[in-house]
Amino acid sequence: MTDLSAPPHPFDSAVGLSPALRGRTRPEYANMVGPFGGITAATLVRALEQHPDRLGDPLAITVNYLAPLVDGEFDVTARAVRTNRTNQHWLLELSQDGTVTTTASAVTGLRRDTWADTEISPPTAPDPEDVAVQEFPEFIAWARNYEMRFVRGAIPTEEAVEQPDSTSTLWVRDAPPRPLDHPALTALCDVFTPRVFLRRGRAMPASTVSMTVYFHADAAELAEVGEDFVLGTARGHRYTGGHFDQSGQLWSRGGTLLATTHQLVYFKD
Amino acid sequence: MTDLSAPPHPFDSAVGLSPALRGRTRPEYANMVGPFGGITAATLVRALEQHPDRLGDPLAITVNYLAPLVDGEFDVTARAVRTNRTNQHWLLELSQDGTVTTTASAVTGLRRDTWADTEISPPTAPDPEDVAVQEFPEFIAWARNYEMRFVRGAIPTEEAVEQPDSTSTLWVRDAPPRPLDHPALTALCDVFTPRVFLRRGRAMPASTVSMTVYFHADAAELAEVGEDFVLGTARGHRYTGGHFDQSGQLWSRGGTLLATTHQLVYFKD
Repeated sequence: MTDLSAPPHPFDSAVGLSPALRGRTRPEYANMVGPFGGITAATLVRALEQHPDRLGDPLAITVNYLAPLVDGEFDVTARAVRTNRTNQHWLLELSQDGTVTTTASAVTGLRRDTWADTEISPPTAPDPEDVAVQEFPEFIAWARNYEMRFVRGAIPTEEAVEQPDSTSTLWVRDAPPRPLDHPALTALCDVFTPRVFLRRGRAMPASTVSMTVYFHADAAELAEVGEDFVLGTARGHRYTGGHFDQSGQLWSRGGTLLATTHQLVYFKD
Repeated sequence: MTDLSAPPHPFDSAVGLSPALRGRTRPEYANMVGPFGGITAATLVRALEQHPDRLGDPLAITVNYLAPLVDGEFDVTARAVRTNRTNQHWLLELSQDGTVTTTASAVTGLRRDTWADTEISPPTAPDPEDVAVQEFPEFIAWARNYEMRFVRGAIPTEEAVEQPDSTSTLWVRDAPPRPLDHPALTALCDVFTPRVFLRRGRAMPASTVSMTVYFHADAAELAEVGEDFVLGTARGHRYTGGHFDQSGQLWSRGGTLLATTHQLVYFKD
């Protein structure tokens, strides 16, 4: 039974949209400049979910971060450019006072019964209960909405040094816990701090330019995760000319590959 | 000295656009249904390159394949949605007779002098001269525009069986050779046949739904490759519900990571 008197989870407040797709930034999900990119991406997935014309589940989304949002209201538009028999192609925009801050393309579609296999394996990790919770600096507000337990590659401390491998592996879930759905999975794809921080052993100005998520989990697999931790892993590939790319995976405790994700990141060293 | 009397390279004919961004499909780059997806993506990158308002080089593009093109003319639109100090965000559409068949978002930008490193390594491979050229079936027209020398994971033959790893690694270049540029690099990102063919040991209906390319190579690195082979490698991650994702890398012979690429693919088994 749903307790209608309980306040909504902060995540649901942050990605909540009116029927006309108007939303509002929340201080709980603030980043250094503007909101956490993952919550913006999640808001666009939520916009898809509540669209009356939507066919099927999210299969892919690419979010482009044009400019930081300012605190306050924003408007989302979502347009189905093409509806095929089993899938649908979308273009989305998020704007504030008529200025577009974020664009996205997305694909939704029906999942059909086919041959299935996962070709890669999750990273080795102890149970989340056996890994310490990471504390984050006070000024990174959004991170307080996640319980993160790093197996390797935690954010650099003041004593950190350069290192040759940017891989991070962590157990992560919403805090307080909340059942996993496609918007929450989207946001989790952006919890991997810029890989250049780990390589250089320090934070620096950096921001996601474009992020892509491929959704592999169906509704039953998301329900099976429920409020449990997921195992995230990510690493960078090439850093050059003020940008780098990073790729990540999100796994269930049971070894289901829930999503794969990629992003191009701007940095200033 | 450029020989002005020589006919253009087939690739340049295929990605060529009028000043009003009108182009035409070419039988040389035909696939099973419609043109090779790589040539369509390359055409969109060419549209960016010839746009008078463009700032900097291509950094990222995501191409969404909504519907197959039919043989004949098409129109491209390219709109700079946001121009920042060092980068620019684009939305592109390709249409035929008013029907949108392809959408894309792209980021162009200036490369700045920063700390740089490549964190991953190219796959082990003998020199391209020591690897046999792959022959393709006659009906795959587009493949005749590429010289492919497979180190591992060639397209399945009639005797092929299922296998647990979809990795392909190959030396590849345009045929006849042509100096590498951003459009050509984009097309090369789509030469990896659907990974499900290797897993299942046979071809089946399959088509790219969305492809992302992150461009790492700057103009000097592209010039250094020139008409030489590049080393491509790709593998799939999860196959389920009629879709799978694959990721790839393109390396120069000298070990420069030129591009990383990802795609979501529809399949019907």
